[in-house]
Amino acid sequence: MNKKIMDFRQRREKLNQIILDRDNVNIKRFFAIDTATYRGGALNAKTKELLGLVASTVLRCDDCITYHLDRCIEEKVSDDEFDEAMAIALIVGGSITIPHLRRAYELWTGGK
Amino acid sequence: MNKKIMDFRQRREKLNQIILDRDNVNIKRFFAIDTATYRGGALNAKTKELLGLVASTVLRCDDCITYHLDRCIEEKVSDDEFDEAMAIALIVGGSITIPHLRRAYELWTGGK
Amino acid sequence: MNKKIMDFRQRREKLNQIILDRDNVNIKRFFAIDTATYRGGALNAKTKELLGLVASTVLRCDDCITYHLDRCIEEKVSDDEFDEAMAIALIVGGSITIPHLRRAYELWTGGK
Amino acid sequence: MNKKIMDFRQRREKLNQIILDRDNVNIKRFFAIDTATYRGGALNAKTKELLGLVASTVLRCDDCITYHLDRCIEEKVSDDEFDEAMAIALIVGGSITIPHLRRAYELWTGGK
Amino acid sequence: MNKKIMDFRQRREKLNQIILDRDNVNIKRFFAIDTATYRGGALNAKTKELLGLVASTVLRCDDCITYHLDRCIEEKVSDDEFDEAMAIALIVGGSITIPHLRRAYELWTGGK
Amino acid sequence: MNKKIMDFRQRREKLNQIILDRDNVNIKRFFAIDTATYRGGALNAKTKELLGLVASTVLRCDDCITYHLDRCIEEKVSDDEFDEAMAIALIVGGSITIPHLRRAYELWTGGK
Repeated sequence: MNKKIMDFRQRREKLNQIILDRDNVNIKRFFAIDTATYRGGALNAKTKELLGLVASTVLRCDDCITYHLDRCIEEKVSDDEFDEAMAIALIVGGSITIPHLRRAYELWTGGK
Repeated sequence: MNKKIMDFRQRREKLNQIILDRDNVNIKRFFAIDTATYRGGALNAKTKELLGLVASTVLRCDDCITYHLDRCIEEKVSDDEFDEAMAIALIVGGSITIPHLRRAYELWTGGK
Repeated sequence: MNKKIMDFRQRREKLNQIILDRDNVNIKRFFAIDTATYRGGALNAKTKELLGLVASTVLRCDDCITYHLDRCIEEKVSDDEFDEAMAIALIVGGSITIPHLRRAYELWTGGK
Repeated sequence: MNKKIMDFRQRREKLNQIILDRDNVNIKRFFAIDTATYRGGALNAKTKELLGLVASTVLRCDDCITYHLDRCIEEKVSDDEFDEAMAIALIVGGSITIPHLRRAYELWTGGK
Repeated sequence: MNKKIMDFRQRREKLNQIILDRDNVNIKRFFAIDTATYRGGALNAKTKELLGLVASTVLRCDDCITYHLDRCIEEKVSDDEFDEAMAIALIVGGSITIPHLRRAYELWTGGK
Repeated sequence: MNKKIMDFRQRREKLNQIILDRDNVNIKRFFAIDTATYRGGALNAKTKELLGLVASTVLRCDDCITYHLDRCIEEKVSDDEFDEAMAIALIVGGSITIPHLRRAYELWTGGK
């Protein structure tokens, strides 16, 4: 597996634990909903991860993109599906998203 | 059909025409790509409209939401699929998106 | 009471009901946390409403500003406290927030 | 002159006065710098208004766009210059800015 | 003291000096207001730093979060107060703020 | 030439190539318009780069700022012109842009 993604997973896990250890009930419930929202339902998990990926890209958050990109690989999103999702993020969000596209494609092409 | 959506369509059409009549080549090419990006390919048109809907919601643009919501109705997105897409937009974008969710649901429930 | 705020309350209530009637579990849980987060705790309810007001202003959401401004009146925020919170929102968020400040002050000065 | 722009000017003036009457020193100083920043210097006033217009468009604030568009008319920005500035705002900010472009062009073409 | 915060302070100081040395009057006045706005008044300095912290978090700026977090430590914000402020930032700003929360909590828990 | 800018150019070039090699027609056309939009026309190339610089700063994208700053150097933007453009970005975008201003000035003063 891609080393950058593996490092991201470990750091994400560790820091999430620091937050959850604080034991603030509203933050913990937020994290629980966040996980639940991406479970397959009327829309399957793959479609939901693409929605998360595009939302993260137009909002320009590298860590969020990395997370959903990693999940997209797990959900067997194809190269063409990835491109078409990124094309929508690019047209909606504009050239200001291009640096994030660059880093996303670097991960995507290194991550297979 | 929902009157608000019909009014939106007409006003959108009229103002787009004003822009295109100016005949700026880069703006016209941008509009052309914008249309092309949502055509079905590796991802079908319905999935792409859901991507556009969620992107528009987290970026909090009412007109963009109205446009993609209208297209989602045409693409036969179900109530449950709409809810699950909105739930993702809400968890990603936070409570600041709620006023847009309110207006989206007003259109959605009046638009069927 | 200020008529604009009263109209806002009614419309907000009505549209929230439309959303909650859809009965999507993640959206409903999000709304529940949203309410719980502003309850007084280590920080009192007044301070939390000021935090909500400033967050809404720098993110430039009129409906969110109206809601927290209304709650600030209930929590007996003074004119000077309101001004100082708005001054922080203005310096952080820049002149792009000024149209929202205008509408906030229109409500605030008409709302007492 | 365009009626929408004239109404905007009057409402802007009136609400700015409400803010300034509160006499918060930091808000008043912010407003003073805001005015000073657009005065001609190494860059002339026309160029500065175009900078304000594009910044307002990518940040998607209708009132800010209206203000700078009005000032651009005063500074004798030509139709082609306006188009080229808008084309930059569109490519940087993406399709999410299009509803604002629509309203900007409606004002611009009605405002001459 | 936390090394990351100390490094941040030094780098911030050094680069601010580069900006101020350019001697642009409007930028210098902006910096002066920025400092003045957080001084205690009708709202005390601690509350103002919490406002700055939440505003920085929903706008997702790591350096701004670090600065206000550092000031919150100086103003003796408690762990529970910090959690409750972060919970508001999270609910308002959504999951897109979580990477910033992670880094903020890493600093906060290492910074005591 | 400034080493940071040179490294940025090389990395940008390399990653752009990864994106373009994917051969998605809409993404490729977007990149083509992006280049075309900044060519001199009714507004000259220098003014357009200043527009790109200010748009990038208020949207707070370091890579976009670096790119347009590099182009501004090529277009012979003077120190005073740079300061006045940055002053507009700062007043429009607020103190949340200051960390980006710091990094921009570090590049600018090291880049001459």
